[in-house]
Amino acid sequence: MDYILHVYCIVCLAKQKSCRQRWNIRPSEMSINTLNPIRAIVDGMKLTPNPEKPMIALSIGDPTVFGNLPTDDKVLQAMKDAIDSNKYNGYAPSVGYQKSREVVANFYSCPEAPLEAEDVLLTSGCSQAIDLAITVLCNPGDNILVPCPGFSLYKTLAVSLGIQVKLYTLLPEKSWEIDLQHMESLIDDRTTCLIVNNPSNPCGSVYSKEHLQNILSGEPCSPPLLCVLYLHDQVFPGCTYQSMASLSSDVPILACGGLAKRWLVPGWRLGWILIHDKNQIFGKEIRQGLVKLSQRILGACTIVQGAIESILNDTPQEFYHRTISFLESNSEICFSELSTVPGLTPVMPSGAMYLMVGIEMEHFPEFQNDVQFTERLVTEQSVFCLPATAFEYPNYFRIVVTVPEEMMVEACTRIREFCQRHYRTCSQDSNELDQ
Amino acid sequence: MDYILHVYCIVCLAKQKSCRQRWNIRPSEMSINTLNPIRAIVDGMKLTPNPEKPMIALSIGDPTVFGNLPTDDKVLQAMKDAIDSNKYNGYAPSVGYQKSREVVANFYSCPEAPLEAEDVLLTSGCSQAIDLAITVLCNPGDNILVPCPGFSLYKTLAVSLGIQVKLYTLLPEKSWEIDLQHMESLIDDRTTCLIVNNPSNPCGSVYSKEHLQNILSGEPCSPPLLCVLYLHDQVFPGCTYQSMASLSSDVPILACGGLAKRWLVPGWRLGWILIHDKNQIFGKEIRQGLVKLSQRILGACTIVQGAIESILNDTPQEFYHRTISFLESNSEICFSELSTVPGLTPVMPSGAMYLMVGIEMEHFPEFQNDVQFTERLVTEQSVFCLPATAFEYPNYFRIVVTVPEEMMVEACTRIREFCQRHYRTCSQDSNELDQ
Repeated sequence: MDYILHVYCIVCLAKQKSCRQRWNIRPSEMSINTLNPIRAIVDGMKLTPNPEKPMIALSIGDPTVFGNLPTDDKVLQAMKDAIDSNKYNGYAPSVGYQKSREVVANFYSCPEAPLEAEDVLLTSGCSQAIDLAITVLCNPGDNILVPCPGFSLYKTLAVSLGIQVKLYTLLPEKSWEIDLQHMESLIDDRTTCLIVNNPSNPCGSVYSKEHLQNILSGEPCSPPLLCVLYLHDQVFPGCTYQSMASLSSDVPILACGGLAKRWLVPGWRLGWILIHDKNQIFGKEIRQGLVKLSQRILGACTIVQGAIESILNDTPQEFYHRTISFLESNSEICFSELSTVPGLTPVMPSGAMYLMVGIEMEHFPEFQNDVQFTERLVTEQSVFCLPATAFEYPNYFRIVVTVPEEMMVEACTRIREFCQRHYRTCSQDSNELDQ
Repeated sequence: MDYILHVYCIVCLAKQKSCRQRWNIRPSEMSINTLNPIRAIVDGMKLTPNPEKPMIALSIGDPTVFGNLPTDDKVLQAMKDAIDSNKYNGYAPSVGYQKSREVVANFYSCPEAPLEAEDVLLTSGCSQAIDLAITVLCNPGDNILVPCPGFSLYKTLAVSLGIQVKLYTLLPEKSWEIDLQHMESLIDDRTTCLIVNNPSNPCGSVYSKEHLQNILSGEPCSPPLLCVLYLHDQVFPGCTYQSMASLSSDVPILACGGLAKRWLVPGWRLGWILIHDKNQIFGKEIRQGLVKLSQRILGACTIVQGAIESILNDTPQEFYHRTISFLESNSEICFSELSTVPGLTPVMPSGAMYLMVGIEMEHFPEFQNDVQFTERLVTEQSVFCLPATAFEYPNYFRIVVTVPEEMMVEACTRIREFCQRHYRTCSQDSNELDQ
């Protein structure tokens, strides 16, 4: 009876008030707490390029935008074959077709970390994989450890779910290795997940076997590991990719990855979670939890799922080589060019498609921070690099090395010109010391 | 310092306990609270078909499983053209390509409820559309009104987010119209969303203009409407589909739909939210909330997004006619067959691909409920219908009418045989009355 009364109550009010007042619809806390720091920073920047110079965007983590890194024809043909087969139009199981899971399991299986179909969940892109992994492991009030600098999505997802984020420091002078002491100092009894991103966005770093072993052995009482491997073994020649799962004797790992960057089709939204759990520490419960969560919105497009067998098995090695050689070559051009620019400290990557550049801010007194620095770089030189404040790591900027070579060269020339113009020797500091 | 101490503390413990004890990883509350009633019920049923009769599954809400309802060649060609164009491999905006949103807006726009690209969000299937809509409108502790019988996903999504679900009754004797008095009695000051599903899964009902107007006008102080339109205007000839948005003068509506059922490709995972908000009651904030939530995992596969223009504009009318004629014809066969079966009360649908059948349980004293009834129907006749307990509506079962016609006829014959065998006149009741 109370309810009916209430309804009529509002009806009375309604006659006096406007609809707007009556309704007062507010977005949920979760939507308010879903924050995208990259958008927040980029939207706040004045990005007016110099009209005399064509824009060069080194900011976009999408390898497809310039057309110079097409996917392989076999990948496209696999999709068309999946369409023609008429076998992949209906609903798939929420964790993906059994056959497609098996194919991914076989592709990533190794003797030290074997995988079967049951250990694989297919998802709507790597983003959903990370979302499911964080969601199954953490309750509101728990905390997760996240690399800094690191990709902003971990924080976006966690904070929207009421999960606290603690940033552990990466060391640029050690090729972005983890400051293990700092990381361990952050662990408390509400820490439910440690995220390791290898190879790293935004750093392009690839950890050595020894460093990975230190991460694993340094904390026998660690939270479960959520490895994020956007670019699984996409590393430069001479460097070896080692999966954490192959080194772990007991630490349970959810490894997230996807088609996006290695096969150069990020829009297709096929990702996966690989469950590594030798000692059954996750046990059935975490697996069931993942399956249940996957039923909320189902997963990846079935056409891409149908194509995955041929994509993984038939893409020629030449395609992978060509891509990685290009990325290494562009990284070397960028690194060697910027190494000799006064005031900049680029860090050479070992894989992936990113390169971080330190700004010695004391030599650029005109700018308060990396955001102002990169903003003016657009105004004067029409070159846009993402300020690393977007990765919670001020005074650096990130360069995406997927642009065509001539564009990379031109961009470096313009960055040099910009720095030369604004560089100041720290005379003031010297004077102060002299005094 | 506390943290470091803590870590070493656990290390000490670790030496005495097994890994399993040390870790004690538990799935999150959200994953535990993600419940799929259909799975829970079906997994608990003993489904052992009669080996002498081939199985006929009338339970699967997937029009593609029998191969008799293929999508149109134009739809497949649109996908292949999108692949060949090489334009749709990169990231799309999280709410979908502008052009694709515009195409959907134009397709669903009408003079009474005009839509522009900004009013459309593309999602990973209709499931994600419903998820985003519920998530943006509701906080934990709020409640939503959901039809009973109704599709279980609304509850699955809401409960996993800590949102309460209140079931309002549909009236089978009025072709599943809403019991408006009951619905209004459920509204309280934490009611943030009313879900109307039209055409309905599992009922196949299509509401008249008058009934929709009563829903809208009966509650000038209602919560915002979330219409779920899986099968937008997929109604039988002679019946008219009326969108709620075209009838609303001020009630703000989020209408969810997708490619799945009308274009017969549910696995492709392209859904949408249409924002109808004539009086700007949602305002910018709900729109921004939806955009922010869409950035958590991004949305639909870009190839399908690229194909949507041709799918919506080039699919021949003949395709829609053929599909709907088939569904109507099969519904009529099923309805007229089961109407003369003792103890059953089928309700003729007006659209969609479902038909609900009431079981007069007093005439089947062998069975306690619809679950036991349908279980035994499998054991004896190898016909599987979903017990409507899965839709929180006991003593009914749902038939999916997408099976080939001869299978539908055969299934009805077997259901008749089954009912004739188990039907008992209510002699006991009569005796009791006589006494």
